[in-house]
Amino acid sequence: MKIKIGILGATGYTGAELLRLLVGHPHAEIKWLTSEKFANKKISEVFPTLRNFIDLECKSIREINKFKNVDVVFSCLPHGSSMHFAKLFLDKGTKFIDFSADFRFTNLSLYNKLYKLNHINPELNKKSAYGLPELFRKKIKKSELISNPGCYATAAILGLAPLIKNNLIDAKFINIDAKAGLSGGGRAPVSERQFSEANDTISINSISNHNQKPEIEEQLSILYKAKSKLVFSTYNINIDRGILTTITAKLKNSISKSELLAKYKNFYKNENFIRLIDDEKNISTKNVRFTNYCDIGVNIQNRHIVCVTALDNLGKGASGQAVQNMNIIFNLEESDGLQNTGLYP
Amino acid sequence: MKIKIGILGATGYTGAELLRLLVGHPHAEIKWLTSEKFANKKISEVFPTLRNFIDLECKSIREINKFKNVDVVFSCLPHGSSMHFAKLFLDKGTKFIDFSADFRFTNLSLYNKLYKLNHINPELNKKSAYGLPELFRKKIKKSELISNPGCYATAAILGLAPLIKNNLIDAKFINIDAKAGLSGGGRAPVSERQFSEANDTISINSISNHNQKPEIEEQLSILYKAKSKLVFSTYNINIDRGILTTITAKLKNSISKSELLAKYKNFYKNENFIRLIDDEKNISTKNVRFTNYCDIGVNIQNRHIVCVTALDNLGKGASGQAVQNMNIIFNLEESDGLQNTGLYP
Amino acid sequence: MKIKIGILGATGYTGAELLRLLVGHPHAEIKWLTSEKFANKKISEVFPTLRNFIDLECKSIREINKFKNVDVVFSCLPHGSSMHFAKLFLDKGTKFIDFSADFRFTNLSLYNKLYKLNHINPELNKKSAYGLPELFRKKIKKSELISNPGCYATAAILGLAPLIKNNLIDAKFINIDAKAGLSGGGRAPVSERQFSEANDTISINSISNHNQKPEIEEQLSILYKAKSKLVFSTYNINIDRGILTTITAKLKNSISKSELLAKYKNFYKNENFIRLIDDEKNISTKNVRFTNYCDIGVNIQNRHIVCVTALDNLGKGASGQAVQNMNIIFNLEESDGLQNTGLYP
Amino acid sequence: MKIKIGILGATGYTGAELLRLLVGHPHAEIKWLTSEKFANKKISEVFPTLRNFIDLECKSIREINKFKNVDVVFSCLPHGSSMHFAKLFLDKGTKFIDFSADFRFTNLSLYNKLYKLNHINPELNKKSAYGLPELFRKKIKKSELISNPGCYATAAILGLAPLIKNNLIDAKFINIDAKAGLSGGGRAPVSERQFSEANDTISINSISNHNQKPEIEEQLSILYKAKSKLVFSTYNINIDRGILTTITAKLKNSISKSELLAKYKNFYKNENFIRLIDDEKNISTKNVRFTNYCDIGVNIQNRHIVCVTALDNLGKGASGQAVQNMNIIFNLEESDGLQNTGLYP
Repeated sequence: MKIKIGILGATGYTGAELLRLLVGHPHAEIKWLTSEKFANKKISEVFPTLRNFIDLECKSIREINKFKNVDVVFSCLPHGSSMHFAKLFLDKGTKFIDFSADFRFTNLSLYNKLYKLNHINPELNKKSAYGLPELFRKKIKKSELISNPGCYATAAILGLAPLIKNNLIDAKFINIDAKAGLSGGGRAPVSERQFSEANDTISINSISNHNQKPEIEEQLSILYKAKSKLVFSTYNINIDRGILTTITAKLKNSISKSELLAKYKNFYKNENFIRLIDDEKNISTKNVRFTNYCDIGVNIQNRHIVCVTALDNLGKGASGQAVQNMNIIFNLEESDGLQNTGLYP
Repeated sequence: MKIKIGILGATGYTGAELLRLLVGHPHAEIKWLTSEKFANKKISEVFPTLRNFIDLECKSIREINKFKNVDVVFSCLPHGSSMHFAKLFLDKGTKFIDFSADFRFTNLSLYNKLYKLNHINPELNKKSAYGLPELFRKKIKKSELISNPGCYATAAILGLAPLIKNNLIDAKFINIDAKAGLSGGGRAPVSERQFSEANDTISINSISNHNQKPEIEEQLSILYKAKSKLVFSTYNINIDRGILTTITAKLKNSISKSELLAKYKNFYKNENFIRLIDDEKNISTKNVRFTNYCDIGVNIQNRHIVCVTALDNLGKGASGQAVQNMNIIFNLEESDGLQNTGLYP
Repeated sequence: MKIKIGILGATGYTGAELLRLLVGHPHAEIKWLTSEKFANKKISEVFPTLRNFIDLECKSIREINKFKNVDVVFSCLPHGSSMHFAKLFLDKGTKFIDFSADFRFTNLSLYNKLYKLNHINPELNKKSAYGLPELFRKKIKKSELISNPGCYATAAILGLAPLIKNNLIDAKFINIDAKAGLSGGGRAPVSERQFSEANDTISINSISNHNQKPEIEEQLSILYKAKSKLVFSTYNINIDRGILTTITAKLKNSISKSELLAKYKNFYKNENFIRLIDDEKNISTKNVRFTNYCDIGVNIQNRHIVCVTALDNLGKGASGQAVQNMNIIFNLEESDGLQNTGLYP
Repeated sequence: MKIKIGILGATGYTGAELLRLLVGHPHAEIKWLTSEKFANKKISEVFPTLRNFIDLECKSIREINKFKNVDVVFSCLPHGSSMHFAKLFLDKGTKFIDFSADFRFTNLSLYNKLYKLNHINPELNKKSAYGLPELFRKKIKKSELISNPGCYATAAILGLAPLIKNNLIDAKFINIDAKAGLSGGGRAPVSERQFSEANDTISINSISNHNQKPEIEEQLSILYKAKSKLVFSTYNINIDRGILTTITAKLKNSISKSELLAKYKNFYKNENFIRLIDDEKNISTKNVRFTNYCDIGVNIQNRHIVCVTALDNLGKGASGQAVQNMNIIFNLEESDGLQNTGLYP
């Protein structure tokens, strides 16, 4: 069986990674893809790595009414655009997996404030599932509209969930420090991501009000009724891909590193894409790049937990997770098309 | 059907890449692997990217007599070591694919001089096939001992073959300039490949007598009775993987770029892993890393051809090509386990 | 006037940077330097960047008794070695500026435990000044034995001092997250710093018990009688030089970002090498590499301060600071030999 | 004495490097600088590395008539712009050092064709000196209009001059292969120089008709009446700065490596900024970045010379050389402001 697929906004970095994954997926068949910038150009000219693998021509979204029916649409459109197209496809019975923040928030006034937009479809928003399979698999399975989480939010929530579920930490002050590769900033050329500016340096992305901080807080509240308060800082690192996130919080009770690790291992015991790493020195973004894995390690300092998670911002943090969600809603093996080792060296 | 496989010297960079490819190969089953440095350690501890994929323990080669029979042995041992083990396996009917230079040379006195060794088995050497499938496929298919070519030699010969076969250039002075990533130097820690030394810089690897220069000259002579004279220079670049090779030679007759490209396209018309690139600006090591592709482009300056080839030194330049050779000798699809897009971004 | 200088252990990375700075210093004259690995080799052969600038031959420390008298000795020897040589020079009236941890701790049992050594000279240890000029300038000026601080400790203490001095934060839980370039690990070749391992990745250096955590805690206690408790985590980043440190702590009282910045600006108002950066997005390791600057920015989240400091681990974090200390004890301009812009791009 | 200086187009990469050098120059005083993009912004906000060093506000070139008189103007304007401003300053007795190609060519029809422009001032063009001091020092000294050479041309001509002067090679086929860092492409953001595109890869810049090929050929003709024919190829490498150029040509007569080196050493015996390197393995872009040095090494293969030159495209290849030219025309020490070691690690 092949799932018929359409992709909106296929020529950014998440689009490129989605295409790479779907091209190697045993049950995927891409039927059409859009790009305003590269309309009428072959996708294998836009991304030379796809030569010999896929030859479709990019369409303009203005021709949307002519697109063939598909089973699922992935939308890699920017925040504020996806919500304008979701209903069109859902009404035809097409599933919709959205990469933007448009359906991530239950609290829409928060969404409106953070993204400086007015949400146009609160009804539809209610039907969306937050696409973090390890924590919301059941809801995802029943849903037709999946809101793929933010990359930072994925990294943070996967590290925090076992702590909050097991009531191990004081959630009133959680420090999160997330170091990220530059593909996270997107494909449009800007000065600060030019090679000569961004090479050989660490710089600050945000130490004040990052949009994904409230996303994390809301999901922790939905999951565990936790009232968490985060300090959330992000950095730009001269790597192509990857987020390494460090979570620090005060432990409520004394606990050893091995007991903590056991809690995490138990929490994720059925999860294919979460790997608990005994020796935290083996955690790196290099080990997870181009995979759907999230590696997690822990240690303890002065009665605080230090939990580190590593994932690929375009993999588990975006396109890999989107494919995982597709696999779930179409009852495929959850790891179909995602079961590859990391890349070394 | 699964091919049963043993690997000698599995814990260097070519070993790591070979393991990655075989773990994802539909017809491969690794039975044992050796490492002197990591004997008795699990391979997934040596290479964390292999966690969840392969769990074998590294064996010492000293226990070679206890190893189970396999269909094929890959030897990633250093030059001078492989020749000591090949016969043992071949006598049992096991195929032997060797990464070292031990069986690359027809002229053994040249081998002895270049590698400062004395070849111990000239008889066996005569039976080996030079494992460059695009040019020696028939011989490889019939052979039990395959000598995998050098990475530079692969890049150079694939660029030169159509020129020499079609008698297009004066072979008396061919300039080859090969820029290579640092994984080519191997996994053992040395000062000049330490990050702080090797980062953000281009340096000279060799501008005098590189060992693979005579290898190229001998193969061109075997293929086309060409008496070629090369100037061959190599450089270290701060990238993980990849070789970009530029070949310059005087054209015998006037020819246009499009005619040249047509000659190349015709020469490689049945080849899955050679891609002729019309716009040479689309050639880069990034487009071919972690693949078995060799991308080729050409242009003309002052009646000289400039031909550029790009491949992954650990892919088409080593382990990918070794798997391609395995596929050939076991009558599998030649692209089994090797059919993946490049990685972007 | 020229200060006559000797250098012990000149051929590591701190030695290289010290030589670069002293070669350009208007009042410095290097008289001898030692290296066990490169004894009898010219320093300009060890470090080709010094060609045309300094031509001395490296001496073995075993010939120490033949070395000419100098005004000051810099010791770049490893922890545990420096303490064996300091007295010899101090007894002759030679100043001694030590890069190791040997004289950094007041609490020697802590030193012994952290570095797994037995301090051989507690009397001498009492006479040392902690060489962080912005906070200990007066003591440094009067001292003949200077203990140059750790690079992480410099970055952390400079960020924390204004907060603790002004009683702005709760010191019971201070989170410090320090991302560092790979030159900090030293010049000896090891696997994890080989280019192909360390390139294009962020990995964990330590999330448990880093040696410089107690160093910071002790200095904060000496300075302000502060009983601080740190969570201190460090990372390896694929850059040559630089530390970006993020300090998070709970603010005791409500305060605005601009008020906070004003406190910092006032605290460091006479300091040449501390730059307060209004827009924290302008803070990066690239802006301070190869300088003696420490750039500092602040912001506020959920009633916590987020303070970021950036410095060059070999500059203000080691050799630059050592030269600054030399300038102080010899009554030179504190910025002599250190007054250069950053390097861009 | 201070030279009063104006800079046109100061906010690109060559401008940044020029400012860095002039700020540290003992006899330079920058009076004004222009930038259309950053007009009315402080230069220390445009380039944070200049904080504490220079505080001038960028002017728009439209206010050119209000600019104070200066002794020399450096023009970092694009090709085709400089020629519109040179006369204005020269008429006032101000020297003019131009970074563009506008005054590089004797053959203006060649210039017009290469740059797709029409030269507006052939008379002025005749008065310009080609600003390569090692070969044109006398003419530079007497000239008021200096045309700073191209970065590639500098690297190539410095390597070729001793060969052609001494009639050592056959100039009918010279192969030049130049690998360059990405700052050479300029500061304007474009897709192919975005970090995620340009990191960890070597790609082709040009293998056909680079604009600096005829520049090299013309200068060799002017210097030595040599009719040279070049094959000239350039590459983009993921480094910030540096060009490593390899020149290959057939030797007319048999000669040893040491004899060749001796010829070079003799040719450049009075040159401060040319360093002949005996062991070519010590040649790298890292050794010369942020300096005005050009390192040169040679070897011989199959009766061909292989000559390698390394320089910093923004240093000796642009702004460093421009300062060297300024020093010459104002009778300063030629090395003033340029006498620093390389940067390591």
